[in-house]
Amino acid sequence: MTSVTIHDPTLRDGQHAVRHQLGAAALRGYAEAADAARVPVVEVGHGNGLGASSLQVGRAAVSDDEMLSTVREALTTSRMGVFMLPGWGTSADLRKAVAHGADVLRIGVHCTETSLAERHLEFLRAEGAEAHCVLMMSHMATPAELAEHAANAVAYGAQAVGIMDSAGHFLPADVTERIGAIAGAVDVPVIFHGHNNLGMAVANSVAAATAGATIIDGCARGFGAGAGNAQLEVLVPVLERTGFPTGIDLYALLDAAEFAERELMPAPPVTGSLSIVSGLAGVFSGFKHQVLDRAERAGVDPRDVFFELGRRQAIAGQEDLIVDVVADLSTRKDGKAA
Amino acid sequence: MTSVTIHDPTLRDGQHAVRHQLGAAALRGYAEAADAARVPVVEVGHGNGLGASSLQVGRAAVSDDEMLSTVREALTTSRMGVFMLPGWGTSADLRKAVAHGADVLRIGVHCTETSLAERHLEFLRAEGAEAHCVLMMSHMATPAELAEHAANAVAYGAQAVGIMDSAGHFLPADVTERIGAIAGAVDVPVIFHGHNNLGMAVANSVAAATAGATIIDGCARGFGAGAGNAQLEVLVPVLERTGFPTGIDLYALLDAAEFAERELMPAPPVTGSLSIVSGLAGVFSGFKHQVLDRAERAGVDPRDVFFELGRRQAIAGQEDLIVDVVADLSTRKDGKAA
Repeated sequence: MTSVTIHDPTLRDGQHAVRHQLGAAALRGYAEAADAARVPVVEVGHGNGLGASSLQVGRAAVSDDEMLSTVREALTTSRMGVFMLPGWGTSADLRKAVAHGADVLRIGVHCTETSLAERHLEFLRAEGAEAHCVLMMSHMATPAELAEHAANAVAYGAQAVGIMDSAGHFLPADVTERIGAIAGAVDVPVIFHGHNNLGMAVANSVAAATAGATIIDGCARGFGAGAGNAQLEVLVPVLERTGFPTGIDLYALLDAAEFAERELMPAPPVTGSLSIVSGLAGVFSGFKHQVLDRAERAGVDPRDVFFELGRRQAIAGQEDLIVDVVADLSTRKDGKAA
Repeated sequence: MTSVTIHDPTLRDGQHAVRHQLGAAALRGYAEAADAARVPVVEVGHGNGLGASSLQVGRAAVSDDEMLSTVREALTTSRMGVFMLPGWGTSADLRKAVAHGADVLRIGVHCTETSLAERHLEFLRAEGAEAHCVLMMSHMATPAELAEHAANAVAYGAQAVGIMDSAGHFLPADVTERIGAIAGAVDVPVIFHGHNNLGMAVANSVAAATAGATIIDGCARGFGAGAGNAQLEVLVPVLERTGFPTGIDLYALLDAAEFAERELMPAPPVTGSLSIVSGLAGVFSGFKHQVLDRAERAGVDPRDVFFELGRRQAIAGQEDLIVDVVADLSTRKDGKAA
């Protein structure tokens, strides 16, 4: 049986659900619980990664330095992971994370923009650190494109590469096809990170493992923005039952998830209307608040806005498109030509 | 494309999550919203079905008569469904439901006990009503046994037959095998009803449709005991995208689910430790409160109790087994022979 390495971004992706307000005690407590469960990698940081704390996307309650030192101290056998989006973070942030003892450093890029990761991956390899690369919003590229960009990332030095279903758009057959294409194109471990907008995060993760992914992400209680991530303590026993050992202690993992539900989140993620619509439309759910705000002011249905953003292939950073779409839908509604 | 008929037990299975306390206004409001979304069948009743309101399993806030007349009045195009477990309900209850205008009457039996449904199915056919039969705890029988019992139910008069994954134990391949066996053995529509203990309710439902089921159950926001049911407003667009039209209006369905979240439930279902463990063990999650209570008093781990109940193939009605298992585990814990 092929074993799977679980990568747990509860303390990073989960931050999105609490506007990056996890405190040091919560970080320490969850890291200790995950370590006790023998979770291989515990990722920590601002939701948008190293260096992202800012007025624009929200200031974290705890600095990167304090997050890294807190989690580092809490881990005895689990490795510490960090995430960085080029532009939000820089090489200086990566250097700091390495100095704090980060073991696994992931660079995230839009699925067809691997070149943005090039110098960061090279830098990490020169530092002797373990460098991974993840392709985000991966439903917006074909399997062949993803395979090509995954191969690019490996050429730049990535020691593992894979995809995030950032919009929660995939069904299992989509994942099978994409992970299969990537696994056929690279000779390093393949990563899958799912979101639950269509209730498929665990099923998609199992499909990924079956297609050859050996690093799978999951968060306690699915902690994450909107519909959340693959629920870690469900994912692990389902992977084991399907034939993919993880080395994790189930009871200790269930305990860690109970700690997370009690201490990290106001409530576990709920799959509400806009999570479902953004998943169907293939649109980044981080647009939600701006869409709701602008749609309400213009008297248009925010669900129509999401579907239209999906047709226009909107990606993060293109918030201006929301304004255009709302204006166009508002005009159509008035009976004028669009 | 094969179309699928959605059967919505929000107002029956969801009752388990609120100890059968849904009031008439909530029943009416949700039934109207589901009707507006063109949900084909809206099922109503005490969580354990017609006639089950009692001190033992909990008294419903509203009588069967009032539930049936309230929902009947609210529906314009949706059909009204009811559920009955022989023993909890009787032919007199079925007669009453028919008189109230119930369109679809489901008899639920343990998966290898179809003979208990025989006279009820015959009675319903004699009344000219639409009679369905569902095999519960269906992970406890082989595909061949399920096919045999499904064929029995059809011989007794069932006009549709299928399975409930009562313990939320199945993974998609399990469903494919079982629905395939049933669809090959009967010439009436095949039913699937999933639970979400292992995060697979929607994926399992899609597997069921792909294997030939044409009546699929889902509840708004997954409303149901423990980990809940397949989340209806996720299931419907995922079925449509997979190639199974439902005839349902998506936006109106999303509105109905928002009504349900706001008016029916204190919070949407969460998949907690004991839901996961009962799903893995294949044990009815309704045992939860008794397991927790007796395990705590004896100082044993309730998770061990669930796994041992699974090994002993415990089914609903066998609550005495909980006492035996807790006593045995308590003895082992003291270092004495089990």
